[in-house]
Amino acid sequence: MKHMFDEGLERREANHVSLTPVDFVARAAEVYGDRLAIVYGDVRRTWQETYERVKRLASAIERAGVTRGETVAVLLPNIPEMVEAHYGVPMSGAVLNTLNSRLDTSSMLFMLRHGEAKALIVDSEFGDLAHRASLELPELKIISVSDVAQAEVHRFPGAIDYEAFLASGDPQFAWTTPPDEWDAIALNYTSGTTGDPKGVVYHHRGAYLNAVSNILEWDMPKHAVYLWTLPMFHCNGWCFPWTVAARAGVNVCLRKFDAKTVYDLIREEGVTHYCGAPIVQSALANAPAEWREGIAHRVSTMVAGAAPSPTVIARMKEIGFDLTHVYGLTEVYGPASVCARQDRWDALSDDERARLNARQGVRYHLQRAVSVLNPATLETVANDGESLGEIMFRGNICMKGYLKNERATAEAFRGGWFHTGDLGVITPDGYIRIKDRSKDIIISGGENISSIEIEDTLYRHPAVEVAAVVAMPDEKWGEVPCAFVQLKEGAHVDAEELITHCRLFLASFKLPKAIRFGKLPTTSTGKIQKFELRAMVGSDRAIDLPGNG
Amino acid sequence: MKHMFDEGLERREANHVSLTPVDFVARAAEVYGDRLAIVYGDVRRTWQETYERVKRLASAIERAGVTRGETVAVLLPNIPEMVEAHYGVPMSGAVLNTLNSRLDTSSMLFMLRHGEAKALIVDSEFGDLAHRASLELPELKIISVSDVAQAEVHRFPGAIDYEAFLASGDPQFAWTTPPDEWDAIALNYTSGTTGDPKGVVYHHRGAYLNAVSNILEWDMPKHAVYLWTLPMFHCNGWCFPWTVAARAGVNVCLRKFDAKTVYDLIREEGVTHYCGAPIVQSALANAPAEWREGIAHRVSTMVAGAAPSPTVIARMKEIGFDLTHVYGLTEVYGPASVCARQDRWDALSDDERARLNARQGVRYHLQRAVSVLNPATLETVANDGESLGEIMFRGNICMKGYLKNERATAEAFRGGWFHTGDLGVITPDGYIRIKDRSKDIIISGGENISSIEIEDTLYRHPAVEVAAVVAMPDEKWGEVPCAFVQLKEGAHVDAEELITHCRLFLASFKLPKAIRFGKLPTTSTGKIQKFELRAMVGSDRAIDLPGNG
Repeated sequence: MKHMFDEGLERREANHVSLTPVDFVARAAEVYGDRLAIVYGDVRRTWQETYERVKRLASAIERAGVTRGETVAVLLPNIPEMVEAHYGVPMSGAVLNTLNSRLDTSSMLFMLRHGEAKALIVDSEFGDLAHRASLELPELKIISVSDVAQAEVHRFPGAIDYEAFLASGDPQFAWTTPPDEWDAIALNYTSGTTGDPKGVVYHHRGAYLNAVSNILEWDMPKHAVYLWTLPMFHCNGWCFPWTVAARAGVNVCLRKFDAKTVYDLIREEGVTHYCGAPIVQSALANAPAEWREGIAHRVSTMVAGAAPSPTVIARMKEIGFDLTHVYGLTEVYGPASVCARQDRWDALSDDERARLNARQGVRYHLQRAVSVLNPATLETVANDGESLGEIMFRGNICMKGYLKNERATAEAFRGGWFHTGDLGVITPDGYIRIKDRSKDIIISGGENISSIEIEDTLYRHPAVEVAAVVAMPDEKWGEVPCAFVQLKEGAHVDAEELITHCRLFLASFKLPKAIRFGKLPTTSTGKIQKFELRAMVGSDRAIDLPGNG
Repeated sequence: MKHMFDEGLERREANHVSLTPVDFVARAAEVYGDRLAIVYGDVRRTWQETYERVKRLASAIERAGVTRGETVAVLLPNIPEMVEAHYGVPMSGAVLNTLNSRLDTSSMLFMLRHGEAKALIVDSEFGDLAHRASLELPELKIISVSDVAQAEVHRFPGAIDYEAFLASGDPQFAWTTPPDEWDAIALNYTSGTTGDPKGVVYHHRGAYLNAVSNILEWDMPKHAVYLWTLPMFHCNGWCFPWTVAARAGVNVCLRKFDAKTVYDLIREEGVTHYCGAPIVQSALANAPAEWREGIAHRVSTMVAGAAPSPTVIARMKEIGFDLTHVYGLTEVYGPASVCARQDRWDALSDDERARLNARQGVRYHLQRAVSVLNPATLETVANDGESLGEIMFRGNICMKGYLKNERATAEAFRGGWFHTGDLGVITPDGYIRIKDRSKDIIISGGENISSIEIEDTLYRHPAVEVAAVVAMPDEKWGEVPCAFVQLKEGAHVDAEELITHCRLFLASFKLPKAIRFGKLPTTSTGKIQKFELRAMVGSDRAIDLPGNG
């Protein structure tokens, strides 16, 4: 029997519209069309101009034969075309797959194949990928972006120039909201701990809600000026391209991070907000004071990837930067929890405050829950700051799942929670704190590195008997991989040779920064005791759940 | 055939949760539990305390036998219990029906019957309704709130005291999000132009999104201090009870509006935000300067119901109040468009700026669209500031429909738009402007009055041959009803007698403030030419669509 509040009151075209962050771009153009949307060197485009360009892009994608629900990959630095891709690709109904430019070409080719990309928008800098892709994926439509240099013809055979591609599109393109807000908007590959990268699929609903959450956490005002220090290829820049549109703010683009340039942009463009990994924050905190001259306005910044150190926090405060510590993973659209500050902390010492600020915190505004659960029973652990469990999320800011990987998807969502793989505790005030990051992931300069991938590579060398890789604290990078290697009896090899070997298979940021030789500590059953290795390199994550050693 | 981005990637418990503003209360308690939530005289409750009280309320409602999707009505001033009802009633799964305390008892009884209310929470001031309801609706559970006075036993027979009711509930009540975010959260009766009031049904999704839109428009920071000048019985206070929870802000309650008290609260409680009808704004703008002494902080205010006059705008600016003009109706959750200000207006004269600010503006942040369409063809009118059409909305901030009124619902939503009944134009910058409010509605002191209801009442008098009521401009109330009456041949009656007659059937705010006798102008087909009557009383809405005269 239908209820009186449902009878005749079903969803209709007038009162139910799919949530999509693409609509933020449309509203910015409608209401604040003459305000700045994108700044990059001499390029200054308003929201109206940007809206027309991205409608052209969407239309050109459609005319190129890419249909709703097909993939468009991009390999771009944080330049205007990257912002436009975040607006125009989903506007066409296609799914945006941003490739991490720090990866090796083979990994990217794997992603293009696995994601079944129909088109690739690629900066002229990345001739390697363009060339390999044109040879191995002849059906792939390649669109080249000539930013700092013209695309070389022999590396980009058959490619169409981005501006010509745009010119082929209709600036009046009548885009429509997705038929279902659960439809995919983006595909982001994450370096898993085992095997091939996994394709994390985002839905429009989650992207919309996390874009708004960013505003709510930062009390971000209309027309904020946002600097692109955080790569947009990471979790779609934590959804900030859509946040900036929702605020009718300014995207200040930045091809390559450089502390001096950042200070110049903060001064000259009036940048009010930016995000960055700890390495970005340290570089800015430790820059010469004269670079900051003439900057009097307040700047808000978000940091994730690792807790900011007390020194960096203190330094940021000194220079008038307001630091917010967030935590998340690719699967939860970037930040999905925040170490929300409390007024009562003001009375504490800097060190104590830094210690509290270093926690992963509480659920993000429009996320339903974050908690620490016993992974076996799915019961919440006691909030005593000591009971270990696994950090888990639940809510609308969780991926659809992993592309073509039902097993991994089911596993990640078992029991009605998204399992992060990170171990943590709940402190008495209800904040969560990571105690041991997913043991096999090393976060170096904001990039995830799989220790297992490095171990697999080391095992390919004929002299290696046993290999184990752990995160080693590093002042500059946060963490770097340190390899422990036990050689086969009678075998001889030095660190340099092993690194040369690794270079054949790994992107350079994944190479071990130190290799130590010797017999590895094992349990009675022969399992390597990584926590001992971590202790040897001074990692503060030298903790394990009983039975997980 | 399923698409690869859907295959195995369906909604799950972990990644899809119904949007509901009730969750904002939970997060405020989780993250900012020790911060102030409600202030009222000596009453000061934190978010944790409030959360426990509203969980008790939800639990008590459930224990009283009210099940999900049934109605709980409330008749309360803007006191803490009214805020709690906005949190606790939907938390129980019930639908909140706030009654307009300015209505006559018969209208309220109609609403209780039509909405099939199972319980009524009523302030001791409203003994009339409580008494009549207890006699005529014996099944209705009555909960009495003793705020300024104890509930009189003979007027509230069988009623349970609110605090005792709360005590019967469980402060650990395990509320759940609604199974479907399309479920009803509130029922708000609107005075229609014909016949009985219509029950506008709100869904959780819309309440959630408009609560956030309020934050986005105001750039409302966390912990804002919100003063309850706007009755919560109007469109659930434009969704602001939920907005304040989403900001972990402070609800400063106010039983009765009074300009001096408002200034005292702004000073003493540090109020930063409030909303109000033009009459509220005028009262504040025209108050003696000494009442404002000691107030140095910026106060933001929203006004709707009618455009603020240039004098009020100028005065508000003078006293440092920042005025935002919004527009909407009950059917779109209160404000659903906003006259978004533009920097370029700063260069204009005060008068010109006031003229621009007086427009109904652009779509609200998370609303999909507002426009002016030809009601016959549903084509958008030209944005020339002259082509008349009907103002219409589309998006998630539109009601489910009218309760038990499929015909009116279908009519209101025909062609995929919500039809406001208000006539307007689009100015060249894309802003909408009302030219003729729904012709049969008079907005007096922020209340809607149906001219047809007054006409029907006049027709009940034996001496009346023809009656027509139009809005007459009024400095204090914005508009007041003016009646034009043509008497039957040989009949005699004076204005005083007709007013006495009207008083039998109408709430006092609906009484005509002037009655003019004489022959009424009609068209050749005998239709009364209301636009001529409007011109006679100096209404600036003396405009009609051709053929609508």
